[in-house]
Amino acid sequence: MSDTWFIVPAAQHDSLVARAYLARGYSGEEAHAASRFCHSAARHGIRTHNALKALHLDDLFGSKVGRWTPGAEIAKLPSRFAASESWDGHNKLGQAVAYEAMDRCMQLADQYGVGMVSVDNATHYLWGGGYVIDAALKGYIAYTNCTSATSEVVPFGGKTATLGTNPHSWGFPTQDAVGFPIVIDWATSTVAMGRVQQFAREGKELGPGWAVDAAGQPTTDPNKAVALLPFGAHKGYGLGLIDELYAAFIGGGLPSIRGTTKGHPQEKRGSTFFFQCIHPGALHGHDYAFGRTQSDNVKACLQDILGPGNEQCLLPGELEAKAAKLTDAHGGLLFTKAEIESFAHITHELGEPAWKPEDFNSINL
Amino acid sequence: MSDTWFIVPAAQHDSLVARAYLARGYSGEEAHAASRFCHSAARHGIRTHNALKALHLDDLFGSKVGRWTPGAEIAKLPSRFAASESWDGHNKLGQAVAYEAMDRCMQLADQYGVGMVSVDNATHYLWGGGYVIDAALKGYIAYTNCTSATSEVVPFGGKTATLGTNPHSWGFPTQDAVGFPIVIDWATSTVAMGRVQQFAREGKELGPGWAVDAAGQPTTDPNKAVALLPFGAHKGYGLGLIDELYAAFIGGGLPSIRGTTKGHPQEKRGSTFFFQCIHPGALHGHDYAFGRTQSDNVKACLQDILGPGNEQCLLPGELEAKAAKLTDAHGGLLFTKAEIESFAHITHELGEPAWKPEDFNSINL
Repeated sequence: MSDTWFIVPAAQHDSLVARAYLARGYSGEEAHAASRFCHSAARHGIRTHNALKALHLDDLFGSKVGRWTPGAEIAKLPSRFAASESWDGHNKLGQAVAYEAMDRCMQLADQYGVGMVSVDNATHYLWGGGYVIDAALKGYIAYTNCTSATSEVVPFGGKTATLGTNPHSWGFPTQDAVGFPIVIDWATSTVAMGRVQQFAREGKELGPGWAVDAAGQPTTDPNKAVALLPFGAHKGYGLGLIDELYAAFIGGGLPSIRGTTKGHPQEKRGSTFFFQCIHPGALHGHDYAFGRTQSDNVKACLQDILGPGNEQCLLPGELEAKAAKLTDAHGGLLFTKAEIESFAHITHELGEPAWKPEDFNSINL
Repeated sequence: MSDTWFIVPAAQHDSLVARAYLARGYSGEEAHAASRFCHSAARHGIRTHNALKALHLDDLFGSKVGRWTPGAEIAKLPSRFAASESWDGHNKLGQAVAYEAMDRCMQLADQYGVGMVSVDNATHYLWGGGYVIDAALKGYIAYTNCTSATSEVVPFGGKTATLGTNPHSWGFPTQDAVGFPIVIDWATSTVAMGRVQQFAREGKELGPGWAVDAAGQPTTDPNKAVALLPFGAHKGYGLGLIDELYAAFIGGGLPSIRGTTKGHPQEKRGSTFFFQCIHPGALHGHDYAFGRTQSDNVKACLQDILGPGNEQCLLPGELEAKAAKLTDAHGGLLFTKAEIESFAHITHELGEPAWKPEDFNSINL
């Protein structure tokens, strides 16, 4: 990590991101969702899924290659099931679909205790943690999974990448208990392909169990790695498979050709999303020890887990919460010099002057 | 594994198990659920959770020590949430509670698309896979988690065991697609404590990342191991924490004293269960490539995952399905010689003659 961070006023950042999406043909609602998302990612220290990555993905997989459809309307399919909805995303911008779907899950959970929305013909929602943090802060237990844009992961015991890095994201409304929502959010590969590429650039050896070579054999040479392995052997494989199963039930296409031009032209190549919220009141057992409230019981249990010997443990979501606190304390979103300079791609596209590090206040951390 | 298997007629097995539970004071309904469960475990080759283990757990944690309450009635709490129910299990036998809860989830899913039941003051349901297989075979996507009877797992980065081995079980109705339900079902520790004890008996070294010693340091010496580590580092830690969070919201007590007599006498020490079913129709996106049916789309996706290079991969649940097929082909439940002899504990308690291997037909596999 860089020691020097440049403080970009949130309004300046959000405006630039929104205008970049508008310039690509996205609607005002989509541009707003996109800038809201990028703001949240930057604020929570999620540097792999900030504005730079979001627009880069739109270049690679999105509106620039005709796969994501700016201004698309979600079709909410008729359903006989009151607590669940099935949507056709029509390749609408993932961030806009995800926020709306999670909002709908919260409404359904208010009424039914649990609500879910599945989305076919979905694009990419970048960082599932952002949506479950948002729902958790509003008081819900939230969950989402999706299939990745491409398939880079080899099933346990196999040689060919036919699974996405398929993430899972869970959020819990623990802010009253520990000061922030617990967020469990990761891909089902041991590491991301970006990490392998970084190791190749830096001449470092990969960890065991990260990747396989072209013959499907495990390798620690980043230059020979062509596909990733699931984390935790058969357990991570099972978790990656869960996203594929949801996708297959929802309407996703063949995993091995997702995001590619391979295979029969009529096969589908998009992702699917699945969202779910639970109202904590629906879990309330009315029998907490010492007459604790539900929230106090959660607090007592978490304190117990982090008791003697475990003081150094982090709770999942703690780093994101610390980053958000740091961001808020400095009154702007924090970016490195390299990141500030990379915003030139975005300003250039808009015909605006590039951001310069010296235009921003900076801090050393 | 033993080469010789003894074929116990299902009626003989089920009757013995039911009578053993009746003799311990359990109701006819509970005894039926218990024998149904043990039958299913044995039929699916789950030798760690068959009748011998079930009754052993009742000795250690259950009716023999006054913690599980034979004949207890579930209290179904009033709730304003239509698709979810919150139950007080009143320490009723876990297998009976779990079957009933999963049945209720299926009914709720029929109406709402998704249904859930949470259970406070729960006991032990042995093998979550059994309940999700059952629901999957009836056509539902099923999920359950629970907190373990005791805490044996150290949080990632810590030294003290304050988490259960907290399993997760997912079942998918893929029998039309691949011939059996996919079942993803495991504990969140790298291995079970029983495995560590087995390695100690056999003088074998543990794998790295399995266990820690009394000082909380990783060890591969099974004689020094006092606690387990989560699988997959922070990812498995997060998964184990999910069960604790559900438990804390539902009403579970402090994880570190669960199943013990430590701590304040008024603290709760029982487990919690969480169950959920989704009706696949609620995920139906009506846009499968080539006009495939939902089931055909699932089949096509799974075939794609197991395509060239991945022919040797197993699908989770495949081994259980093979065991069930083998069992069915031999017209009885298959047990090893040692297992047949161990049934003497059960027959002895009932004042019946012990089973002898020579009383049963056998096969060599």
